[in-house]
Amino acid sequence: MSLDPDPPAELVPSERATGPGGGDMDPEAFRDAAHRVVDLLADYLASVEGRAVFPPIEPGSIAPRFPAAPPERGEPLDAILADVERLIIPNLTHWQHPGFFAYFSTTASGPGILGELLTAGLGQNPMLWRTSPVGTELEGVVVDWLRQALGLPDTFDGLITDTASTSSLTALAAAREAAGLDVAARGLSGRDFDAPRVYASEQAHSSIEKACMTLGLGRASVVKIPTDVDYAIDVVALERAIADDRAAGRTPVAIVATIGTTSSTAVDPVDAIAPIAERERLWLHVDAAYAGPVALIPERRAAFAGWERADSIVFNPHKWLFVPFDASVLLTRRMDALHRAFSLHPEYLRTLDRTSPVRDYNEYQPQLGRRFRALKLWIHLRWFGLDALRERIDAHIVMAQRFAGWVDDDPDWQRLAPVPFGTVCFRYRPAPLAATADRPDVRDRLDRANEALMAAVNATGDVFLSHTRLRDGFTIRLAVGNLRTEDRHVERAWELLCREAARIPV
Amino acid sequence: MSLDPDPPAELVPSERATGPGGGDMDPEAFRDAAHRVVDLLADYLASVEGRAVFPPIEPGSIAPRFPAAPPERGEPLDAILADVERLIIPNLTHWQHPGFFAYFSTTASGPGILGELLTAGLGQNPMLWRTSPVGTELEGVVVDWLRQALGLPDTFDGLITDTASTSSLTALAAAREAAGLDVAARGLSGRDFDAPRVYASEQAHSSIEKACMTLGLGRASVVKIPTDVDYAIDVVALERAIADDRAAGRTPVAIVATIGTTSSTAVDPVDAIAPIAERERLWLHVDAAYAGPVALIPERRAAFAGWERADSIVFNPHKWLFVPFDASVLLTRRMDALHRAFSLHPEYLRTLDRTSPVRDYNEYQPQLGRRFRALKLWIHLRWFGLDALRERIDAHIVMAQRFAGWVDDDPDWQRLAPVPFGTVCFRYRPAPLAATADRPDVRDRLDRANEALMAAVNATGDVFLSHTRLRDGFTIRLAVGNLRTEDRHVERAWELLCREAARIPV
Repeated sequence: MSLDPDPPAELVPSERATGPGGGDMDPEAFRDAAHRVVDLLADYLASVEGRAVFPPIEPGSIAPRFPAAPPERGEPLDAILADVERLIIPNLTHWQHPGFFAYFSTTASGPGILGELLTAGLGQNPMLWRTSPVGTELEGVVVDWLRQALGLPDTFDGLITDTASTSSLTALAAAREAAGLDVAARGLSGRDFDAPRVYASEQAHSSIEKACMTLGLGRASVVKIPTDVDYAIDVVALERAIADDRAAGRTPVAIVATIGTTSSTAVDPVDAIAPIAERERLWLHVDAAYAGPVALIPERRAAFAGWERADSIVFNPHKWLFVPFDASVLLTRRMDALHRAFSLHPEYLRTLDRTSPVRDYNEYQPQLGRRFRALKLWIHLRWFGLDALRERIDAHIVMAQRFAGWVDDDPDWQRLAPVPFGTVCFRYRPAPLAATADRPDVRDRLDRANEALMAAVNATGDVFLSHTRLRDGFTIRLAVGNLRTEDRHVERAWELLCREAARIPV
Repeated sequence: MSLDPDPPAELVPSERATGPGGGDMDPEAFRDAAHRVVDLLADYLASVEGRAVFPPIEPGSIAPRFPAAPPERGEPLDAILADVERLIIPNLTHWQHPGFFAYFSTTASGPGILGELLTAGLGQNPMLWRTSPVGTELEGVVVDWLRQALGLPDTFDGLITDTASTSSLTALAAAREAAGLDVAARGLSGRDFDAPRVYASEQAHSSIEKACMTLGLGRASVVKIPTDVDYAIDVVALERAIADDRAAGRTPVAIVATIGTTSSTAVDPVDAIAPIAERERLWLHVDAAYAGPVALIPERRAAFAGWERADSIVFNPHKWLFVPFDASVLLTRRMDALHRAFSLHPEYLRTLDRTSPVRDYNEYQPQLGRRFRALKLWIHLRWFGLDALRERIDAHIVMAQRFAGWVDDDPDWQRLAPVPFGTVCFRYRPAPLAATADRPDVRDRLDRANEALMAAVNATGDVFLSHTRLRDGFTIRLAVGNLRTEDRHVERAWELLCREAARIPV
């Protein structure tokens, strides 16, 4: 079949023999090609530290370098891999760089990458037990391994999702059902209850608000509770908000507590919140997407006190457990509520297995299709062992505390939040401005200076920082969490900050 | 740090030198390990046809073969890869097998697997332009390539999601906003409109119903329109349902038309539905998750007439475009409505880039984090070229038509639906029962016989079929769509069906 007999000359492959010839790359051609890609990738990993973490790229400059039209004829692997090196790699934000201190790190560990390679090649879809028996059963094994690693009781079951956004959405959808609102069947419109409410601190992640938008609860349903001086939820204000809503006839549904907020990694006191949720019969969802893996270290579990009383907990192995994106885990004591929120049985998904005690994971989440994410987690956990992971996480916390010490010891710098985990919030505030820093004009000058400072440091390419805004204003965040980050990278960040600060007019 | 000084003996690695030593697998160790995994995977692909597509596995038999507790110490790669061969591969459903005719196929093409390997290793998260410039801009390029390939006008923009479930949920969330309901902000409860309605055929995919459950519309919001003799939506009944709902004060929001339903691959007449949607000002979402890639073939675009008038279209490259799971594409003329449904701007996601014409894809979908799926699509499309993909899709359709011919020509078999694409719905119905097939007792006997027949054929391991239920009862589906399927695999399916049917008492 030749529907376009006259393709653009530049798209005609130079080595037709390596082209597809109407079928797939055969297994031997795949073997050769994949060995080449492995070398390309190993070279990339070996070279990544020499690259600018965030290269100087202008928005809109990349797309025009690709052909505007799709290729009619197959192209040789040589041409494609050359373009990977020419167009893809130079235009990445290098999350694999040990100087990546922005947002929260996602590292793709070596064993995790191997897991993803196998996942892609084995082509599983564990939506039903029948469509992937080992994909289904290994997910149960790995989720339980992680539960044990975190020190949670065996009343917690769970599943692996793509992101914390999906995990929290799934939890809140289950909360609606657990509250008896019967939303999956009847919807939220025209019902005899009014205004469901979800309580979260004003520092909770945007994914909570987004989940409420998606779920039809609306941003209006999110009651943002004020926080204390450390950016942890004000428990008295939480209780008052619930009482006020009940008095006004509204419908409290869930409380979201965060262990490790995104801005400042603040810790909501779950041990004080859990009794409120229990008394008020509200679903308690704990967002530990970032900090969860710290609970692998028994000596560091104080921040997690009470989370075993939650109805659901999310944590992301693709963050501080170094598993390649994507991998979020939703643990819950209420799998039945997830099932009520998402179960459907069309005939074409019925299997003879349904009579057995089979779990079909699609019935517990918004999507039908699912990736075999348990495989990379299993390989990653086995290759490292929990002890090596604890060691890395602990080292990151020590690095962050050391950096925080430098900030604290220098009168020209100011730390803006506690450092319970691996993230430091700070700004440059020259000592002479300490007394007037709250004056609006000085505050503006400090904001502008710190924004310029962060941009200057990022422009060096050695490290990559991001920011947030806390009570004092523009706040630089240094989040230590890349698997390959060592002391010297944190030292370099401090050196660059001090060097560039000296050049920035405040 | 040694938190557990006494690990179980069987978990102590035998080659500690290959273990992590507190850091990651270094690039050279990764290179060696990845070359080994490539060989394992190439061997798997070379051997897959010799395996039973669905092996004889009992539910619950796999999990107990894994250790109940997670490993405290790292284990050598040898042990892990040996377990991949011992525990993982024998317990897969082999979606990569050319005899996979169940559900709708997902093949992981060779180039697609290379793309996934690079995706994992490069560790991108194109949630913001800034967190992956090329991940963001290449997504725009590839989505536009696919739009052109499908013959759609450049008024369509779009994005890549994980699954059709997410694509359709995203489209319906946008439909709510486009209808002026302001749900993202205000939610669905306690509003002055009643009972939003989504219209879809009774044959529409369960993901539509699930999306409505998730979105807070509820299953009750889905109006299931009857279908005609060919299982296509009854357009007159659709118009009547909308009119009835308006008369009753309900709130029509969207129509979902399916091109290629999951049960029988029926085609709703989009060219007749689009004018209704336009007149009624309803969002028209076209679910072409399965059949969409057929539109790559201009000569086969008749089934798609009118889809260019849709507000949104979903199709899944991980189905009939042979890209490794997961990859769904949502095309839409209304990106602004997606943005209204999902956009949030927390400070920690603000970037200096926001002043430029940058697209941050997280603002158009339920999740914040995103995989770099454009990379595998780009590699896959370049390696094959559109023409080779057209050739495979066309060959699959011809194979299905040939199989349908065998069914039609044999008086002991009955075809149960048209074959517009690559899927045949049929059953064994011995000629002597033709006249009484509608009698309840005969119908039951035929149902049981066909269920047993399908189980017997699947038990051979050479092919894997799934079923649905159409008007006549239990229906076997043969869905041709694996990249590696050849005529001989379809011939084998027919041979096994005839052989086993002769052994089944009806």
